[in-house]
Amino acid sequence: MRIAVVAPSCSLKREAADAVRALVTDRGDCELAIHPQSFLSDGHFAGADQARLAALLEVMADPAVDAVWFARGGYGSNRIAAAALAELPAAARDKVYMGYSDAGFLLAGFHKAGLDVAWGPMPQDIVRSGGEQAVNRALDWLVRREASSVESDVRPPAMAFNLTVLSNLLGTPLEPDFAGVDLLIEDIDEHLYRIDRTMFHVTSSENVRKAGRLRLGRIGNIPENDPDFGRDEESIVEEWCNRSGIAYGGRADIGHDAQNKVVPFPLENR
Amino acid sequence: MRIAVVAPSCSLKREAADAVRALVTDRGDCELAIHPQSFLSDGHFAGADQARLAALLEVMADPAVDAVWFARGGYGSNRIAAAALAELPAAARDKVYMGYSDAGFLLAGFHKAGLDVAWGPMPQDIVRSGGEQAVNRALDWLVRREASSVESDVRPPAMAFNLTVLSNLLGTPLEPDFAGVDLLIEDIDEHLYRIDRTMFHVTSSENVRKAGRLRLGRIGNIPENDPDFGRDEESIVEEWCNRSGIAYGGRADIGHDAQNKVVPFPLENR
Repeated sequence: MRIAVVAPSCSLKREAADAVRALVTDRGDCELAIHPQSFLSDGHFAGADQARLAALLEVMADPAVDAVWFARGGYGSNRIAAAALAELPAAARDKVYMGYSDAGFLLAGFHKAGLDVAWGPMPQDIVRSGGEQAVNRALDWLVRREASSVESDVRPPAMAFNLTVLSNLLGTPLEPDFAGVDLLIEDIDEHLYRIDRTMFHVTSSENVRKAGRLRLGRIGNIPENDPDFGRDEESIVEEWCNRSGIAYGGRADIGHDAQNKVVPFPLENR
Repeated sequence: MRIAVVAPSCSLKREAADAVRALVTDRGDCELAIHPQSFLSDGHFAGADQARLAALLEVMADPAVDAVWFARGGYGSNRIAAAALAELPAAARDKVYMGYSDAGFLLAGFHKAGLDVAWGPMPQDIVRSGGEQAVNRALDWLVRREASSVESDVRPPAMAFNLTVLSNLLGTPLEPDFAGVDLLIEDIDEHLYRIDRTMFHVTSSENVRKAGRLRLGRIGNIPENDPDFGRDEESIVEEWCNRSGIAYGGRADIGHDAQNKVVPFPLENR
């Protein structure tokens, strides 16, 4: 199992790369190839759009690569997602892709193009407290489809998205078909009024309304609302589900944290 | 000219109400009726949804009211906009509606329903430095359609939106038709990476792509991007216009500030 790491959004930290390399050496069940592009820096991004796109297409086209693991989130994969799909290499269909947060733009578009994608922890997560567990959870799934890595209440077909990323991909060419999908959402660093506003937007979508159910992962690090918002994230999500006729499926075990689980997207031949 | 003030989003401050009342008395050319709902408080909002909706419908239905002036933005008008339109009183068509920021949800939906709406300063703006000028600019337009209150480069038909509000109303029943529209945007308190992400979303819309041109108002109080984003708000907006084939029309004189100008939305009989 050869796993290629590229950074379509923000730069991978050297200390995270070193720690993941050491962990992979200890495991001894896979080979890790961290693309040098992962360490580039161009303003907000891990290199200019062209550099990020070229590295992504290179690993997608490499028949020796079994899995493409997105180095980290941040912001920026939406800027190159459509271009990557426009030049889709044949070998891209023989691998699996994993990431979360901003990488959701790629998960959505790649899934729509028929590629095999999964929501799950990324290399940069190793610097979190408990991060080694998160990275091992991702690798256990990538290497041997370890069932305990997968979110335990998932009812396939399932998808998972950062709520803000989901909101920003609706109406774009990256928007997948949510019909019958167990749709898991999570977010971080968003005020409750923003969660409410984004839920209004997302649950107004006729496509999202076709989801089988909607489940709420963790909303991390919520900034203080002034004045107090008056309700919590679960009542917000439940209310918009009720308003829009989407079944609310309760809490989900995903989030921007070391406990984040894997959610494999549907694939016809899985 | 009787102007009713209601607060579909957040509460109007007493000191703002007092200052606007004093200014209107000095002007002597209009009558101001600040609805008591404007001062309610329920968590984040100026009263619960039902209280905000009832006050809004009450002034819309009142034949003695010539103009409905939204007290302030914040967040929350999207929660009652569709309900207000579902029960649209007959007298609602004989008045003009003004506001900006979060009130954009109402401007969009009301315009779509054939009502006469305009982007412009709100009562709460009076507490800004230079705020009396902003409030007088709004009143000059409401009372006598003063031409100098209007954004000077507007090419009718025009619309103006807070960029984040615009992003969150796409795909909802509030989304208006942008065909041929001079579309002005502005924002506040948003990181540059968020502006970039929102521009990706907004300019992916086939409807927005039909706009005559897109013009950039002021992006106020931009939080520091870590690392530095590497480009400014105008190059971000210009790039997404270029990518999506929308004509970029340069800067616009709107924003969350005392200089904010009026942008009347198109009305067939104007």
